[in-house]
Amino acid sequence: MTRCREETLESGKARKRVVIEGVKPEIDGGRFPIKRNVGDRLSVEADIVTDGHDVIAAQLLYRREPDAGWQAVSMQPLANDRWQGEFQVQELGRYRYALEAWVDRFRTWQRGLQKKVDAGQDVAVELLVGAGFIAEVQGRAPKAAARKLGEWAKILQGEGALGEKLAAALEPELTRLMGQYPDKRFITLYDRNLAIVVDPVQARYSTWYEMFPRSCAAVPGVHGTFKDCEARLPYIAGMGFDVLYLPPIHPIGVTNRKGKNNQPVAEPADVGSPWAIGAAAGGHKAVDPQLGTLEDFRHFVARAREVNLEVALDIAFQGSPDHPYVKEHPNWFRWRPDNTVQYAENPPKKYEDIYPFDFETEDWQELWEEFKNVVLFWIEQGVRIFRVDNPHTKPFHFWEWLISDIKKDYPDVFFLAEAFTRPKAMYRLAKLGFSQSYNYFAWRNTKWELTRYLTELTRTEVREYFRPNLWPNTPDILPEYLQFGGRPAFMIRLVLAATLGASYGIYGPCFELCVSQPREPGSEEYLNSEKFEIKHWDIQDPASLKDFIARVNRIRRENAALQCDWNLDFYPIDNEQLICYAKFSEDGANIILMVVNLDPHHTQGGWLELPLGELGLDPGQPYQVHDLLGEARFLWHGPRNYVELDPKVAPAYIFRLRRRVRTERDFDYYL
Amino acid sequence: MTRCREETLESGKARKRVVIEGVKPEIDGGRFPIKRNVGDRLSVEADIVTDGHDVIAAQLLYRREPDAGWQAVSMQPLANDRWQGEFQVQELGRYRYALEAWVDRFRTWQRGLQKKVDAGQDVAVELLVGAGFIAEVQGRAPKAAARKLGEWAKILQGEGALGEKLAAALEPELTRLMGQYPDKRFITLYDRNLAIVVDPVQARYSTWYEMFPRSCAAVPGVHGTFKDCEARLPYIAGMGFDVLYLPPIHPIGVTNRKGKNNQPVAEPADVGSPWAIGAAAGGHKAVDPQLGTLEDFRHFVARAREVNLEVALDIAFQGSPDHPYVKEHPNWFRWRPDNTVQYAENPPKKYEDIYPFDFETEDWQELWEEFKNVVLFWIEQGVRIFRVDNPHTKPFHFWEWLISDIKKDYPDVFFLAEAFTRPKAMYRLAKLGFSQSYNYFAWRNTKWELTRYLTELTRTEVREYFRPNLWPNTPDILPEYLQFGGRPAFMIRLVLAATLGASYGIYGPCFELCVSQPREPGSEEYLNSEKFEIKHWDIQDPASLKDFIARVNRIRRENAALQCDWNLDFYPIDNEQLICYAKFSEDGANIILMVVNLDPHHTQGGWLELPLGELGLDPGQPYQVHDLLGEARFLWHGPRNYVELDPKVAPAYIFRLRRRVRTERDFDYYL
Repeated sequence: MTRCREETLESGKARKRVVIEGVKPEIDGGRFPIKRNVGDRLSVEADIVTDGHDVIAAQLLYRREPDAGWQAVSMQPLANDRWQGEFQVQELGRYRYALEAWVDRFRTWQRGLQKKVDAGQDVAVELLVGAGFIAEVQGRAPKAAARKLGEWAKILQGEGALGEKLAAALEPELTRLMGQYPDKRFITLYDRNLAIVVDPVQARYSTWYEMFPRSCAAVPGVHGTFKDCEARLPYIAGMGFDVLYLPPIHPIGVTNRKGKNNQPVAEPADVGSPWAIGAAAGGHKAVDPQLGTLEDFRHFVARAREVNLEVALDIAFQGSPDHPYVKEHPNWFRWRPDNTVQYAENPPKKYEDIYPFDFETEDWQELWEEFKNVVLFWIEQGVRIFRVDNPHTKPFHFWEWLISDIKKDYPDVFFLAEAFTRPKAMYRLAKLGFSQSYNYFAWRNTKWELTRYLTELTRTEVREYFRPNLWPNTPDILPEYLQFGGRPAFMIRLVLAATLGASYGIYGPCFELCVSQPREPGSEEYLNSEKFEIKHWDIQDPASLKDFIARVNRIRRENAALQCDWNLDFYPIDNEQLICYAKFSEDGANIILMVVNLDPHHTQGGWLELPLGELGLDPGQPYQVHDLLGEARFLWHGPRNYVELDPKVAPAYIFRLRRRVRTERDFDYYL
Repeated sequence: MTRCREETLESGKARKRVVIEGVKPEIDGGRFPIKRNVGDRLSVEADIVTDGHDVIAAQLLYRREPDAGWQAVSMQPLANDRWQGEFQVQELGRYRYALEAWVDRFRTWQRGLQKKVDAGQDVAVELLVGAGFIAEVQGRAPKAAARKLGEWAKILQGEGALGEKLAAALEPELTRLMGQYPDKRFITLYDRNLAIVVDPVQARYSTWYEMFPRSCAAVPGVHGTFKDCEARLPYIAGMGFDVLYLPPIHPIGVTNRKGKNNQPVAEPADVGSPWAIGAAAGGHKAVDPQLGTLEDFRHFVARAREVNLEVALDIAFQGSPDHPYVKEHPNWFRWRPDNTVQYAENPPKKYEDIYPFDFETEDWQELWEEFKNVVLFWIEQGVRIFRVDNPHTKPFHFWEWLISDIKKDYPDVFFLAEAFTRPKAMYRLAKLGFSQSYNYFAWRNTKWELTRYLTELTRTEVREYFRPNLWPNTPDILPEYLQFGGRPAFMIRLVLAATLGASYGIYGPCFELCVSQPREPGSEEYLNSEKFEIKHWDIQDPASLKDFIARVNRIRRENAALQCDWNLDFYPIDNEQLICYAKFSEDGANIILMVVNLDPHHTQGGWLELPLGELGLDPGQPYQVHDLLGEARFLWHGPRNYVELDPKVAPAYIFRLRRRVRTERDFDYYL
């Protein structure tokens, strides 16, 4: 007896006959939370099995952390012992979910009773057994329910007609009441800690514009200010963006400052890289005086919000040699035997203008706290979104701690990970708490590459924690495709980013002005990169893509299908240069079909093939596709249809699919 | 500072920069052990990642439970941050394995040093940094190693030539020593409890024969005894079986005994079902006096072992109404309001001769202990293998407790689960501890069905815990295929079971005598089933398959490829009635190729296609296939070859593939 209790099974667990396994979603056995957005419905599935043939009851439990009470919804069996239940997450923050299940002895008994009656067997004793079950539950139920149950038990045990007793035994209200007070000793609780992080909707659907504030001055050659940036706001909002991301705005180091085009030695007039953070004027909590004051910044953030633009800041945890930390906290850096600080390097490359922090310092707790204070400081200035520079070069645990700690108090704040690194490290960072992630989109150009990569991101478990943000260019990445494809290449990559991803961003005005010259052949660096000098952009250039971008972003805003990543399907089209895919709104009402010519140089045509059934289209009826880019409407029939795209005119169709609802040949009748 | 330590990360974990995830094998996040057999090598893979670009060191740890010390083998990187390591399990019982990894700062430094030297950079300070690393490890290392390390440090800091210093810095012996004493504060230990159950080899590779002892008498109509069974041993061993499984051998109940063909009322002479366990003469720890004494049984077990036959007993935890437990432990049964015990039922079906135990009784601990004592009792009589009847109708926790408890003291004992139930329940029972499992093989007949099912069992995670035992028939299952296919059908199903599964079994002599008459059309029950009456079998019938079975089992014994389940590949063959597959020994030396005609009525022919590269065959050279069943040898050339099988002659080929090793046309030169 002793062994029985002590060694393998404590008595509590042993009697719980139902097992729960194969829970989805569940990341790494519950080690990491899944991600959702405010208002999402969460569907949970599990294998729920018991010995024998008894009827099972199962519930999905959920609560908002830290202190809301548990709520329960009943789960339903699908097939093959798979069960499903769902609930809605209505508030920002952290939720927990759990599952519980038990053998429902009363419903098992009801089922057997019915079969015995059907087979003409005597059920007199059987009815007494049922009355026994009811009496047992009566003992646990509150008064009113107990009284009701007692009445049913009396009927089953009484002298009434068999028909009356059977009707009572199978009464739905009795079944319901009996199900409400299960014997807690026999309930199996799924014992993993499953968490949900509920982010703002913008973490799922966002449209980013990156811009160097110092290049916003009205006059060429002058250092731009936050005031200049304010003047630029209508232009950016007019293109339909909702996040305006600025590279670091802090004082820039002087020591070992890089010159134009990353020259190792700077000229006196050179402004240096904004990522070489810190100078006499301050470090991570200061603004570069040439941009303005902290108050100017706050004013700018507020003005941006008025035109529905959230300002996103760059978090780059590294310093210039002139950063005040170097003197104030020498222990936060790694010193070499010659009493110099180890600058950033990736041998044989050297980044002498940047000192990495030593995350392995014995004073690590002080260092971590200070970085959290940096984030809190900017939150206090009104910032809600942070783009984190190279998070993969800082410890994973640091990010998990920082982000979860910040989000505890500010669940509306979110972080974008700029980790262009190995896949496992990228995914790990997302699991640890980053709400959005840069990814390999910039280097996925062919139909095969795009299909494979986006399928991995949107149709596998990855989607539970990794929200891609697709960037066709960044200040560090001018992809070869854009260098050689001309204006059509920019349009193609824009349409792909904006329709394959619910979140995407561009680095402007380089993007809308189709800047395409690399520093040297084979390089992905921009020539005369804005990272090292002030630029003056002619944003009114008639060749600008700003109107095209505005149109694409309006299409995104007006079509729910383009605002989430989960419902993306690729369809066959018999030309390798054409890619065809569709996205669906969750309710299925909004269907957007894209056809993109991946060849920026030549007209390409091909036959695509649509799964009419899946799209809810009647194969015997025509249906309308309405190009939201060019406003053309086509009447198609059947699954196979021909499309042709001239990249010089328009390299893509963004069709809204309209099912025919009346037979008249009147386009207004397509929904 | 306080929050940092208290809330999210204890300081110990925070500084461990390496993360370990995606470990394989690992069942349900470590909830269940994986299974191996004595002598197996276990290969473990994991994603091991750190921030930045530092060099990682990783080790696979393992130990035999409960008290052997941990052993370590180093893991090697594969690609994409995937690492691999392996070790051998040499003893029966339970092992644990774990993984640990850390950033190897010294090797990171060596790599950087080499790159800087290659780029012609000054490394004077760099060498001092290296000396610092060595000094640090010196402080942790034992005396002898510390002295050696000190010498190297001196060279790096000394006045010697650069070349000499570099040679010392990159010295493999230094690298090795430095790797042996990592700073334990920074080592990441994978924190799941991963266990291995190491079973005897027979749990992986076994050949079962089921037989009713009472039908073994030399004279028709007489109740067989263990002595009669002893006389039958050479016959069974002669066919090449190594497990002899007996249905329950206990006294059989009289109350509500079933008659022949499961008649509800028995004639006085009827012997009843052996699964109606318990009578005046005793229960689960007694033998039916008609079979002999307990001593006779032990003698029989010993005699069987002399001809390499392990006797497997049936464990059926249920009683007849006459079982002594009913009076001694009324609380172990479920009583109805009319003071009768609830007999087994699956409404509307009734099994009045059988009382199930009430596993939900308040006295469950007493009941569970008693069942363990039953198993221990038979272990004491010499039994090592148990076939468990309907385990899926008893609580899952019960089996987990029972089996792990028994195997703690008797790691050579193993259990076969007879759970013909829903897939999730079958798999769960295997995870909980059953070493072998009945499965759906009896109902998988077509090429598509066999390919799909065996691929699921042998090529997915299922194989880590579920070892199928394939039975073409059992006393409960005479599949339709055998009812209508005649003798060829029995040969076909035998070859499939014996070559698709490393473990298989037949219910004889029904099988070798090709008994094929069902109780009624559409039924899978045998007519005049041995479950309810004594049979007398003419085992010398010239139509018997005994010689064919003996040959197939000899082929299994002589070819390692057929003794494991993991290396099974299906190959294309352009006839739906023909199935082609191969199995490989672990070292790849033994390759067996099967072609089976699934049509028991007609000759079928077709072109098969072999992946020559995978098989190690030169596409330019002929190779020999040697049919181990019929002894024919064919010289094939290239991937496509024609085969034809007449089921009346031989419905299958079991080819041994022989690669050509000399060019002479002499068959002896094929290996």
